[in-house]
Amino acid sequence: MTDILEKSQAKQRLRSLSEALDSGALKQVSRILNGGLSPSDIAHLLESSPPRQRALLWNLVEKDLEGEVLQYLSDDIRSYFLSQLNAQELADIIEDFESDDLADLLQQLPDTVIQEVLDTMDEQDRLRVEEVLSYPEDTAGGLMNTDTITVRPDISIDVVLRYLRRHRNLPPMTDSLIVVSRRDDFIGVLPITRILVSNPAATVREVMDTEVEPIPVTLSDTKVATMFERYDLISAPVVNEEGRLLGRITIDDVVDVIREDADHSLMSMAGLDEDEDTFAPVWKTTRRRAVWLGINLITAFIASGVIGLFEATISKVVALAVLMPIVASMGGIAGSQTLTLVIRGMAVGQISGANVRWLLNREFFVGALNGLFWALVVATAAAAWFQDLLIGGIIAAALVINLVAAAFVGTMLPLFLKSRNIDPALAGSVILTTVTDVVGFMAFLGLATIFYA
Amino acid sequence: MTDILEKSQAKQRLRSLSEALDSGALKQVSRILNGGLSPSDIAHLLESSPPRQRALLWNLVEKDLEGEVLQYLSDDIRSYFLSQLNAQELADIIEDFESDDLADLLQQLPDTVIQEVLDTMDEQDRLRVEEVLSYPEDTAGGLMNTDTITVRPDISIDVVLRYLRRHRNLPPMTDSLIVVSRRDDFIGVLPITRILVSNPAATVREVMDTEVEPIPVTLSDTKVATMFERYDLISAPVVNEEGRLLGRITIDDVVDVIREDADHSLMSMAGLDEDEDTFAPVWKTTRRRAVWLGINLITAFIASGVIGLFEATISKVVALAVLMPIVASMGGIAGSQTLTLVIRGMAVGQISGANVRWLLNREFFVGALNGLFWALVVATAAAAWFQDLLIGGIIAAALVINLVAAAFVGTMLPLFLKSRNIDPALAGSVILTTVTDVVGFMAFLGLATIFYA
Repeated sequence: MTDILEKSQAKQRLRSLSEALDSGALKQVSRILNGGLSPSDIAHLLESSPPRQRALLWNLVEKDLEGEVLQYLSDDIRSYFLSQLNAQELADIIEDFESDDLADLLQQLPDTVIQEVLDTMDEQDRLRVEEVLSYPEDTAGGLMNTDTITVRPDISIDVVLRYLRRHRNLPPMTDSLIVVSRRDDFIGVLPITRILVSNPAATVREVMDTEVEPIPVTLSDTKVATMFERYDLISAPVVNEEGRLLGRITIDDVVDVIREDADHSLMSMAGLDEDEDTFAPVWKTTRRRAVWLGINLITAFIASGVIGLFEATISKVVALAVLMPIVASMGGIAGSQTLTLVIRGMAVGQISGANVRWLLNREFFVGALNGLFWALVVATAAAAWFQDLLIGGIIAAALVINLVAAAFVGTMLPLFLKSRNIDPALAGSVILTTVTDVVGFMAFLGLATIFYA
Repeated sequence: MTDILEKSQAKQRLRSLSEALDSGALKQVSRILNGGLSPSDIAHLLESSPPRQRALLWNLVEKDLEGEVLQYLSDDIRSYFLSQLNAQELADIIEDFESDDLADLLQQLPDTVIQEVLDTMDEQDRLRVEEVLSYPEDTAGGLMNTDTITVRPDISIDVVLRYLRRHRNLPPMTDSLIVVSRRDDFIGVLPITRILVSNPAATVREVMDTEVEPIPVTLSDTKVATMFERYDLISAPVVNEEGRLLGRITIDDVVDVIREDADHSLMSMAGLDEDEDTFAPVWKTTRRRAVWLGINLITAFIASGVIGLFEATISKVVALAVLMPIVASMGGIAGSQTLTLVIRGMAVGQISGANVRWLLNREFFVGALNGLFWALVVATAAAAWFQDLLIGGIIAAALVINLVAAAFVGTMLPLFLKSRNIDPALAGSVILTTVTDVVGFMAFLGLATIFYA
């Protein structure tokens, strides 16, 4: 039994491809690449390759596989390859695309190219693509396919069976047919497993499922994903405001949304984009990272400014300079725990006005308790280190103040940012660090200035 | 058309439930809870409620819904509710569980209770559950269900149709039947869409799909998820080493794995568990967070120790104390960008021995370039602030050193930790911060000591 996904084998394949590329054995590479690897495997190989190898590999992919491979690539890499094609090459590649994938792809192109590509398509296909293009990418409309199989409620299961048999195959992920009226109004769904277990003489109306809620075309993709997760859906019908059927969304596209949403929080907290190309070239990477470093440098200078206010105190008691990073860093750690928990809770829709007060209370007490506990530990260590009880007392007080402040900011900041339509995962950690640095240095050095004056 | 998932409505329901609970209108709560809410909706409500309300709500859930609701709860909360049931109540609840869900649930119970529960089950069910229990939870074996519908290759499609019609319904997520030999050896799959479009006189052998790779029962759940994502699967057969069919894995369980894996990186980097209960009580939260704060305190003390080595220099030039956090924090930020990128790249299987050298090179140059650029900015600002060119030169050099060190550690640390079977997401950020603090303070204060001596 072959197991093409065992990591060791995947890695080995990557290594042997890489060696073959290095030694210029392009024929061998081409054979590995086009012989039996699925388009998604090839896309994964491309995403796992540094730029030079990636360009070589892409040139070796056979023309009739290119379209499918493009569908599996992440936005960043795909738009690079797309930018190197002319309109005719594009039109050839996209022939077999499903309407949602095509719309995704077109959205990455300049408007003039979109129009050129649409012009090459036949009337019916063009209308379908234009339909999907008219909805934002991050809504149900942007996710949906228009390749639904619909049936009327008054026909018999036997007729449905004969109708289906006229197809050579059904669209991928077809787990149910959609029951619509003559005017295409959504009525219900007919799971194909139910077709199989029903009496052929029964009508569609008798066996169909009308409990299913259709998805409004304007619903956000994140909410669509929640719906799929919560109700274990494989596909779901999409309707417009009047309840007319527009298309359907399938689980494979929803899984991509789930993956992207989850990646988004992780990557944004480090100032990265969830579509970040792991193997982007030096210059591109440098420019992107520089922006984030610059933003954080402002934070660092603000902290320095606070310390600068207390230069006189520090020159009297140098131990303060030695201990002050402890206060700031403990605040930052405690705050980022709260921040991460709240950002995750918001992402999965657990946190709302009804429970945020409870959460704030909980975080306040957790911050205070942990502040008191670790203040005791740090105070003892500091007092022993510098043979100075006072400095122990001061650092203890500063720690408690900073951990309570961290709890407050960590809870309220993401809620505030979201209410302002600012991404909490991206802006949250920078602002939090600024606050815990400023509060930490201010409390510690401020108290020291009072007591050592 | 109702849209039960519009966030505003979900929040409103949460709030009205919360108000009803506060005012003690339990009958009203019970009506909202048991009237039309799906088990997954109830689970979501429970997860979104603080402890007191959660306990009240749980008591109001009707007995025959409890089992299903439990299946949708996260581990932390589920094990709490489970711990309050006796063996008989447990046995009643789990009657309708699928074998994989039951195994998950049993794994959270003490061994004696597991045995008691197994004893209440009938022979056949018990054997099935024991089978699943014998595989680790994070492997294909732990994910699989045993409710497969199998057919032999030599029968006709017509016979298959008649066989299926004898079922009242098919197991959820049945997108294909599994073709096996008389000895239960896996042969191929028969997609049910293909049953519908095939000539009834054809045999299963003629229309079945033998391209499908069965999943080895020992494959890790993360790799199973990769496979489902890459090949757009809805369900897949699971086999043992000899190729005998053991069960099947369905996309709904795989989506949970994808969600958990993605959550894991995010939460672990803040020292949280991906199963963390957002509304855990004060005391439990305090204890869990205390551990993480304690670990980070060690880092902070190490940094303080380094600063302490240079007390004499600082007391001569207090500006050093003002500027030193900039060097440490810029290193930490740059390092955590690299670390996050590498951890994500490892999680999706993009990074291997074949490309890690390229990655290290890239990060080195990015670190050096950004180091040089921001060193220039910081040096200018510092020299102007303190009217001292030397301090500008020293902080510039320290910044470059620290950003290059951060690039190296950010890239190599997660790979090293993984090779030692230590979770990079959990341990990575603490160790990285320690390194960038130590290198930052050491470089800056060390150079200052040399030049100001």
